[in-house]
Amino acid sequence: MKIGIIGTGMVGQVLAAKLAADGHTVVVGTRNPAETLARTSPDGYGNPPFAAWQRAHPAVKLGTFAEAATHGEVLLNAASGGGSIQALTAAGAGNLEGKILIDIANPLDFSKGMPPSLSVCNTDSLAEQIQRAFPGLKVVKSLNTVTALVMVNPAAVAGGDHHLFVSGNDAGAKAEVIRLLGAWFGWKNIIDLGDITTARGTEMMLPVWIRLWGALKTPMFNFKIVR
Amino acid sequence: MKIGIIGTGMVGQVLAAKLAADGHTVVVGTRNPAETLARTSPDGYGNPPFAAWQRAHPAVKLGTFAEAATHGEVLLNAASGGGSIQALTAAGAGNLEGKILIDIANPLDFSKGMPPSLSVCNTDSLAEQIQRAFPGLKVVKSLNTVTALVMVNPAAVAGGDHHLFVSGNDAGAKAEVIRLLGAWFGWKNIIDLGDITTARGTEMMLPVWIRLWGALKTPMFNFKIVR
Repeated sequence: MKIGIIGTGMVGQVLAAKLAADGHTVVVGTRNPAETLARTSPDGYGNPPFAAWQRAHPAVKLGTFAEAATHGEVLLNAASGGGSIQALTAAGAGNLEGKILIDIANPLDFSKGMPPSLSVCNTDSLAEQIQRAFPGLKVVKSLNTVTALVMVNPAAVAGGDHHLFVSGNDAGAKAEVIRLLGAWFGWKNIIDLGDITTARGTEMMLPVWIRLWGALKTPMFNFKIVR
Repeated sequence: MKIGIIGTGMVGQVLAAKLAADGHTVVVGTRNPAETLARTSPDGYGNPPFAAWQRAHPAVKLGTFAEAATHGEVLLNAASGGGSIQALTAAGAGNLEGKILIDIANPLDFSKGMPPSLSVCNTDSLAEQIQRAFPGLKVVKSLNTVTALVMVNPAAVAGGDHHLFVSGNDAGAKAEVIRLLGAWFGWKNIIDLGDITTARGTEMMLPVWIRLWGALKTPMFNFKIVR
């Protein structure tokens, strides 16, 4: 499958590595590929520069945001929360038209210190902002409630016995995302919360997620909804 | 044990009924007991008027907020989010001094339609507002992430195999609340998230909780943190 990933950070790298390893053709999009490849220092999270990562993953192509969007039959938004609208604008609304975007980004705001707050929440969400900005895109919020290594390998936590959520306005797109997350990564337990406004709920799980990371001393956990 | 409950709504009733049935002496506080007893119509959620409930639970005493606070060795805040500070102010700061308050309230704002949004979140929380307003009170946020019937009977959901959280500045008060929730209701799995600012995280779980209620068609569920 042809997959376009928006964003070259750690989440984009983990997704790209897994999907490329399974034989999909992946283009990761960035604002300026030459600049991204020229970076020699770690990113803000201490991860190695992209060029070093790409040498270990030669099957993954780097392109502009527009090239990633054009390439992908399905798109994944792994940009930062604050950079998502800009990145998708650079990708070009016409290149997004009619496509599914799995929106993984969280609107984390580090400007007020640690732990981060959210730059949008409560009566709006990043997923809704993206859907409003690009009405032709089928935005499905998912994967944003787990750390990257759990996104691509749910079985790494309790054998996969925990939950993921989807939010989106297009029922067909949500069904396809549920199918893809199962086929790509092995997700079995996915709860459809409803339309895109329900992404407020999953984006607002980030504050407790961050505190649980602190309390448990590991990001390798997830929420299981029990009845 | 002498327990004071702030608020006569459904949550206060469920807590009072369980604690009184187990032999604790419970005073439920309200602004004006005569007015509360005079109400003959259901509350905003469709629950029967308090007087009808009290006839079925004669061991539970109704008093003013101040009488409930004075009576309680431990206090539970089961007022509405918007009414909590007012209720505790009416209880009297002097009557709260040095006591533990288990803060169960969520700052739900129904004024903008359904589902409710939060009247405070992200960079502040109701629990922090209460702690700031009453520095002599030992506020421990807990129980606010489950429906009332699960608060008092965690075993009703998956045999109790799921989690509760505590947030608070006073380590001794948190340890005592963890002990009480086990002794009173049978809670076994309680995660200490940290200081009172971590209540932002659990209060912000309400939006996804409400959407899960819709998706699952029952409020009898909870989050289990799996590793």
